Order: sequence, then structure tokens, then C-alpha cells
Amino acid sequence: CLSLSHLMSSSSAAEIMSVLFFHTMRYKQEDPENPDNDRFILPKRLSFVDVATGWLGQGLGAACGMAYTGKYFDKASYRVYCLLGDSESSEGSVWEALAFASHYSLDNLVAVFDVNRLGHSGALPPEHCLDVYQKRCEAFGWNTYVVDGRDVETLCQVFWQANRVKNKPTAVVAKTFKSRGIPSKQRFLFSSGLLKTSNSTSLYAQDPPWSALPVSPASYPALPPPSTGTWVATRKACGLALAKLGHANDRVIVLDGDTKNSTFSDIFKKEYPERFIECFIAEQNMVSVALGCTTRDRTVAFVSTFAAFLTRAFDQIRIGAISQANINLIGSHCGVSVGEDGPSQMALEDLAMFRAIPSCTIFYPSDAISTEHAVFLAANTKGMCYIRTSRPETAVIYNQQESFEIGQAKVVRHSVHDKVTVIGAGVTLHEALAAAEDLSKQDISIRVIDLFTVKPLDTATIISSAKATGGRILTVEDHYPEGGIGETVAAAVSMDPDISVHQLAVRGIPRGGKPSELLDVFGVDARHIVGAVKRMLLN
Amino acid sequence: CLSLSHLMSSSSAAEIMSVLFFHTMRYKQEDPENPDNDRFILPKRLSFVDVATGWLGQGLGAACGMAYTGKYFDKASYRVYCLLGDSESSEGSVWEALAFASHYSLDNLVAVFDVNRLGHSGALPPEHCLDVYQKRCEAFGWNTYVVDGRDVETLCQVFWQANRVKNKPTAVVAKTFKSRGIPSKQRFLFSSGLLKTSNSTSLYAQDPPWSALPVSPASYPALPPPSTGTWVATRKACGLALAKLGHANDRVIVLDGDTKNSTFSDIFKKEYPERFIECFIAEQNMVSVALGCTTRDRTVAFVSTFAAFLTRAFDQIRIGAISQANINLIGSHCGVSVGEDGPSQMALEDLAMFRAIPSCTIFYPSDAISTEHAVFLAANTKGMCYIRTSRPETAVIYNQQESFEIGQAKVVRHSVHDKVTVIGAGVTLHEALAAAEDLSKQDISIRVIDLFTVKPLDTATIISSAKATGGRILTVEDHYPEGGIGETVAAAVSMDPDISVHQLAVRGIPRGGKPSELLDVFGVDARHIVGAVKRMLLN
Repeated sequence: CLSLSHLMSSSSAAEIMSVLFFHTMRYKQEDPENPDNDRFILPKRLSFVDVATGWLGQGLGAACGMAYTGKYFDKASYRVYCLLGDSESSEGSVWEALAFASHYSLDNLVAVFDVNRLGHSGALPPEHCLDVYQKRCEAFGWNTYVVDGRDVETLCQVFWQANRVKNKPTAVVAKTFKSRGIPSKQRFLFSSGLLKTSNSTSLYAQDPPWSALPVSPASYPALPPPSTGTWVATRKACGLALAKLGHANDRVIVLDGDTKNSTFSDIFKKEYPERFIECFIAEQNMVSVALGCTTRDRTVAFVSTFAAFLTRAFDQIRIGAISQANINLIGSHCGVSVGEDGPSQMALEDLAMFRAIPSCTIFYPSDAISTEHAVFLAANTKGMCYIRTSRPETAVIYNQQESFEIGQAKVVRHSVHDKVTVIGAGVTLHEALAAAEDLSKQDISIRVIDLFTVKPLDTATIISSAKATGGRILTVEDHYPEGGIGETVAAAVSMDPDISVHQLAVRGIPRGGKPSELLDVFGVDARHIVGAVKRMLLN
Repeated sequence: CLSLSHLMSSSSAAEIMSVLFFHTMRYKQEDPENPDNDRFILPKRLSFVDVATGWLGQGLGAACGMAYTGKYFDKASYRVYCLLGDSESSEGSVWEALAFASHYSLDNLVAVFDVNRLGHSGALPPEHCLDVYQKRCEAFGWNTYVVDGRDVETLCQVFWQANRVKNKPTAVVAKTFKSRGIPSKQRFLFSSGLLKTSNSTSLYAQDPPWSALPVSPASYPALPPPSTGTWVATRKACGLALAKLGHANDRVIVLDGDTKNSTFSDIFKKEYPERFIECFIAEQNMVSVALGCTTRDRTVAFVSTFAAFLTRAFDQIRIGAISQANINLIGSHCGVSVGEDGPSQMALEDLAMFRAIPSCTIFYPSDAISTEHAVFLAANTKGMCYIRTSRPETAVIYNQQESFEIGQAKVVRHSVHDKVTVIGAGVTLHEALAAAEDLSKQDISIRVIDLFTVKPLDTATIISSAKATGGRILTVEDHYPEGGIGETVAAAVSMDPDISVHQLAVRGIPRGGKPSELLDVFGVDARHIVGAVKRMLLN
């Protein structure tokens, strides 16, 4: 049932995998998804491998997540084995993972470096100098062995030894050869005398001795009433909601990358320190770790950092979606409303990034109550979810009885006299409401829509509102025009010739300043909405 | 003129910077942009610093690019100093840069680790264990000193020693303290007795002794005639064009990340090996190195890899645009037309990513001749450029006299009877042309537009064509619908109520297969264009 010949066909690591699968690893061969099984991670897409790391350098981070989960959440005996090519070990994410694993004493993790000396297009810098890998792994706090990757007996031995090392992950630096042809499968099975049966299909690895705790399905109780009538930043509401969620389900975990005091994930940490993973400034690894933590549904993971810094992990997010990862990402401090921190910390391209992830659900809540709903909906939604939160405090506009659904926008202000449909989300929803007040004094009535989810988009509500307001839509967003709300709305109505869409968005690279000033300078505040509505009505 | 007080105001590295600026570094204080000056890179946005790395962990890669340029291209004596915080050194990109610098023996590079023990939200794992940093730097091949960051005399000494080390970059691991208050500027200047004058504003650093070679402005001769009438993959045409460009200007350099035999950048390497930088699989560092190579206009850099792998460097690209970096990125193997390699290697979100970079010019050439024009136009365009190329061979459709401009689409097929405007680029342009042939046999005439640049978009040509074809536009792209060609076109015409836009794009995560099969399965081939055109005409 294991397609070992497939594995071996182009691999320099045939012996390594033989030893792992037929000697070292403990798993129920007839039940590959069993949570008690040892895990194996390979930087290639194979059916029985836990994570399709697909592109290189991401497997070890996922392996760290699995090992962390095994050691600290499942408190189980399963071990995690990860095979890395030498060419992929030049990816920085590998070194982020090495630092993470030793910091958290992941002694249930073994990384095998398959040093075959060859990259895709030529020889690699360290060539066959295995001591380079050895020194680096040791400097990163790993128990390290250097072996001949063809020596089955030695491989068996080091994996056995690794099992006995406490508080340190183990690296096996194996010298291998890429082009020496495919060796006979049978050779591995018998050459060492360590393997017990003669037919590879009837080989059974040892049963895993201790069980991972069962995980209850991710379903959550109704929300406790949140406070209303006040001003709360959605980033803070998000931290509060995570803590509530942690109370509702003890498999909810939160990861943050040294931003917990700004994203308010420290509210969760304070309540549930044992379920909070500090990943430090290493966003690529943080996303991969979350991915590893959620495999086999062991945890419900939320990754929290500044939205701008998630761009760092775009490839991990992309590969996560291909692997059908079930993770939730929270990006705070979106848009120019961040204010003083300057453009490098303002996410103005995160909607473009996450919209281009197939099947990703994107929440962009506009107040504390809808933020809490977003967090709970994300926890209950399979696949990848992204929640975009803002830094400034905004008014709570929904009441406690309001219900929210994915793909369902809210018409927050409407009358039969509405002339334009204004679509906002986050801070721009509040600007749209202020503009509506202002315009109503001038006898101009507008309809205001809160998207709630940017993806999927509530096309039906948008089109029916547009038709009720003379076919006029104005979108307002704290994001670049490209790939944002304006474009998704324009594309959604593009086949309807009676609807026109005008866009207000942040054009050009912003500078730092006061949030309200910046919304004005970059043309996405109430004043600019008022002006745009009037211009649309002139035509 | 140096705003040292600004530098020092919140820094634990006040002494380090004092020593560098007033003792070690050689620069013409009155001419901060002089190419002979020593370089200084700080992970914060400051006016006189070469690169606004803005977010953390990117400075050292840029410093590597500057040092590589100084040593190998300028062959000058200027040295490069980079200050890193300990919190940012958890970013994997830092370790990519460390590996790069030692591999290329950048002995003109000094990295100072400012180990103040504190991250943004708490203490860091190694705390004040400086030997952790020391071992890691040494394992990555750096000459390493551990110092007290407040000890001015020792700092002067190690920087002096670093100057004498051959073939190795130097790391200075400095123990510092964040919260001990701002020390007096004067104290540094005199405490060691090493500094010569009493007034900081009249302090002059030593003049740089050797000059960098002057760089001629980046302008290129007319194109030599390319071959026509054949089938050439645009990725290969790109490699050929780079070699021609290298012939035209000896400051053109190419960087690749272990994909040179697939991207065809090896054609350039074969002609100009001394101007090719192999960056191995470390895309973040590759982009930062390119950024460093192009500062002060020392080189014209092209970064080449699979388009999918550029997602790895989204943050570096984002920060590069904020820093007004003048670099050119080439992404090959876009879309499902890649074929067998599977979804992790197919870029289907790269247009969304680059469109969300303000002021980025995006070329998406459809044949060999337009590809060559794209490369030459990119070399002559300030700011960031992206060239999207395809894997399959496609027909050469332009002749040698055709001229190309940024923001100018080509109407490649038209008649007065056209009923629909079909917009394609890359492989889908050829599908559109095949569909046009097929439809013409059924007496349906369509107009076909080749975008050439996706950004800026030729809105005028699109709108006038749409108006000449009954207001009907059909976009066809080898990209996800989000953030791609269909959305940019829909947004561009969204204020015009008489134009409707239909989109064909890749929906859902693809699988591997034969390119032509996949174009069919994912609905972006000639057959689907024919079907879509007919449906549009029924309405």
C-alpha cells in the first residue's frame, strides 16, 4: 500500500526511506491517517505524505508543527521524520524551522538531510562537505549525526539513537548520490538483516504504542453577548474573540510572530499560555508550523501577525491552499489607517494576495461584533480563512442579535430614495456611514453595504442594491485598487451592462501620518465619498 | 549633515554607529550618493541609508548585493556595513544572506548583530547568549568577533581587523542594552581618544581611496533582427534577449535561483559568466541582492526564476517598490501551460501579486519578438519591472519592424465586422487567434488584442475596440481570475455602462497534465473562446 517504488524512482534517498518505512517508523499500515502513526514529510507531492510541501524548503516547518503538536498538545509518542534535499536547505525557511525546533526542544523530530551535492541546475556550494551541514545544524542546537546514506545498518542505528535523545531534535546528515541508478528494493530489505519479512507488501511497521488524545470536532457554542455601544478596534476584538474561542474548544491554538502585544493575541496567551506558540520574527516558518499543527485535524490554528508581514509567507500560503490546509490567518494593521508606522507596515496588497488563493475565505469585519462572528465562522470553516483587521478604534454598529454568514453582505443603511450604493469594509464602512449622514443633509440618499466577506462576494446583494440605486456603485477601500474590493465588485457586475462601478482606493505608495489624515490624503474618507457620489450623480 | 541624533534616539547601537560613522567608514560627507563611499544599511527607513529595508531581515541581503557589486563589478575599495537587530535575525532571509556572503567570499562586508535581547513583544530565545550567534555565524562561514557593544575602543579595533581579513565576511556580535537611556553623543566622540575633532558637524571621515568605475547610463542600441517565422518559447526568447542586452551594456547582470537551465538565463551565463550571479534556492535573498546591486545605479539587474517561486519574495518585492528599487524580475513557467510539473510550480497568482505593487510595470509578451522588446524596455525603465514568460513554444507573430511601447496594446486581428473584442496575452493570445480562425469559418468575426503590458493597461485601445464590437469584451488568461487580466479590464471599463466584460480564467487548483489538455480542462483554450463568443452573441 505504500508506493515505495514511486518514492525510490528518482531518489538518492532510497535506503533512508527504506529504513524509515520498514524499520524505524511506527504506523498502522492499513490506516495511514491514524493520529497515532509516526509522521513522514517529504518535499514532494505524494498521496500518503501528510503535507504536500510541493515546493522546497517548507517541509521542515510543517514537521515542526506536527512535532510540537505531538509533544505539547497530543502528549503522544508519535515521532516526526522529515526528509530534506540539500538544494532546498538554502531556503531561509529551513533555518527558521531549525531555530524553532531547538528552542522548543522538539526531541520527537528527526530531519534527514539528503546531501546528494546536486541542485536543479548544477553543483551546490557545500558540495559533499558534510561538515558544513553538521556545523550549521549543531550551531542551531540540533543533535547531529553524519552518515553514509547508503549504509542501512548505520541509518537504523542513528534513528534508534535519536529516539533516546532528550530535549533536542536530531539531524541526520546523509551523504548520498543522485545518479548512481535505482538500486533493487529487495536489496534494502535484506541487506542489513534487520528487516523481518520477505514480501514488502506484508511488512508491518511496529504499532504506535501510545495514543494521541482524541480531538472533538471543531464546533462551537453560540456567542456570549459582546459589549456594544462602545468603540473597539477590530484587532482587539479579534484577540478577545480568540480567547472566547479558546474557552469553547481546547484544541484552539494561536501562533504569533513577536507581535502579540500589537495584534492583541496576547489576550489569548494570557488565558491559555499552553496553547499559544510564539514563533518570533519568522513568518514563513510560522505559517508552515500552523499547517503542521492542523494536519489530521489535531488542532484548530489561528496565525496572527501584521497583515503586511504575511506577504513574507505568500509561498507557504499558496502551497497550504494546494495542500488543502485548514488554517486561519489573521492580519492586523491593514491599510493607511495604521497611521504613523509608515508604508512598510501598512498592508495594502493583502486582499490581492488572499483573493488569489483558491478557496480562501476572506473576512473583513467592520466592528467588534462582526469580528467575533468572523473568528467563530473561521474556526468552523474548512480550508484556509483570512481575517483582515484594523488598528483604529471604530464604533460598534451591530447589535448582539445580528447573525452573520459567509458570503452574506449587510445593507447597513437604505431607503427607497437611495441614488448610489456605497460599498465599504473595515474603516471605510464607517467613512461611508459618515458620508451618508452628510449627504442626507443635502437631500442625497445613499445605500451603504458592509461586505463582511470579500471572498466569497455577495454578488446577489450587490447587484440588487445597484439596480435599486440607478445602477451606480461606489467602492471605498483601505487597499490598493489592484486586486481589492473595487476590482472584485467590478468583475462581479461586469456582465451587467446597466451597472457602473466607481472606485476609491489608495493610489501610490503612502507615507506615515495620522490615520484620519491619511484616509483623507489618500482619498478614502467621508469627504471623498461625498465628492464622488455627487460627481456620479452629475453624469 | 548626518542625523546621528535621530539614529541614536531609540537605539541600543549608539556606540556602534558612532564608531562606524566617525571612525571606521570612509565617505565624502558632503556627497552621500558618491559611488566611492562606504555603504551603511540599517533596518529602518532613514534618508541617507542606501536601502529602506523597512521591515526586518532584508538589510543583509541588500548589503550582500552592494558588497558583491563592489568586489566583482566595481572592483573598488568601498566597504559595506550592515546593522541587524537580534530580533530580525530570526528571519530565514538573514541566513540565506549569510550563506551567500561566505560562498562569494565577500570580505568587504561587515554585519553587526545588535544583540539587545529584546524583541517587539518580549525576550528573544538566545537572550544574551552571544555564543549562539557566534557559533551560527561561524558555521555559516563568517569571521566572527564577540564584543561589548558599548566598548568604543574594541569596536574600532574589530572593524580595523575586519578590514584585513581576506575571503571571508566579518560578523560583529555586539552585546547591547535597549533601555539604558540615550547616552551623550559627545561621550562616544571623545571617550576613546580615537576621534580627532571636537565638533561633530566638522568631522570628516577618511576619503575613500579608490574609485568605483563610472557606469554609463542605461541606454541600449536598436535591436538586432530576431529570427521570425519559427516557434520559440517566450522563456527562451527572454534568455536570448538577456544575452543581447549583456552585449549592449556591460553593467547588465543576471541573477538566478538554481533554475538557469529552465529559465534559459544560462544563455546569458554562457556569454557573460562574470556577470551572472547564481543565488541558489533562496529567492528572498536573490531579490534583496539584486536590490543591493542596483543601488546608486551601479548595475542593471535582471532576476530570473519560475514565476511561482517569486511569491517567496513578495515582501522583498513590496519593500523594494517602497524603496523605489530599479530592478527587473522575470518569472517563467506561468500558468497551467507549464504542464506536467503540477500546481506548486504553476504561477497562477503572479499577476495579482505584481499588479498590487505600485508603479510596477508588467510585461506579458506573447511571442519571441515582443519578449525581446520587453527585456530592452524593462532595462530602460526606472522602477520595478516584471516580465511574465511561458514554457510552451509559441509561433512568432510579429515582424522585425514592429515597435512596442509600454502601455500600448496590439490589435492583432480586426475587421469592420467584428462582434466581440477578445483580449489575451501569452499562450491565450494564440488560443484567441486560433478561435478567430475557427469562428471566421462560421462567419463570426472577432477582434483580437495582445495586451503586451498588463500594467499600465492600454485602456484607450480596449475601450475603442469594445465600442467597435458592440460593447462586448472577452478576456482569456492563464491565471486565476482574481487580480488578473479580466479584473483589470473589468475595472478599467467599469464606469462605462455600455461595455460588458466576460472572463475566461483558471478556476480552482489545477493538476498536472499536458499543456494543451490543461488549457482545455481549465477553460482557456480556443474551443472555450469559441463557445464563450457564441454565448455572448446570443444575449
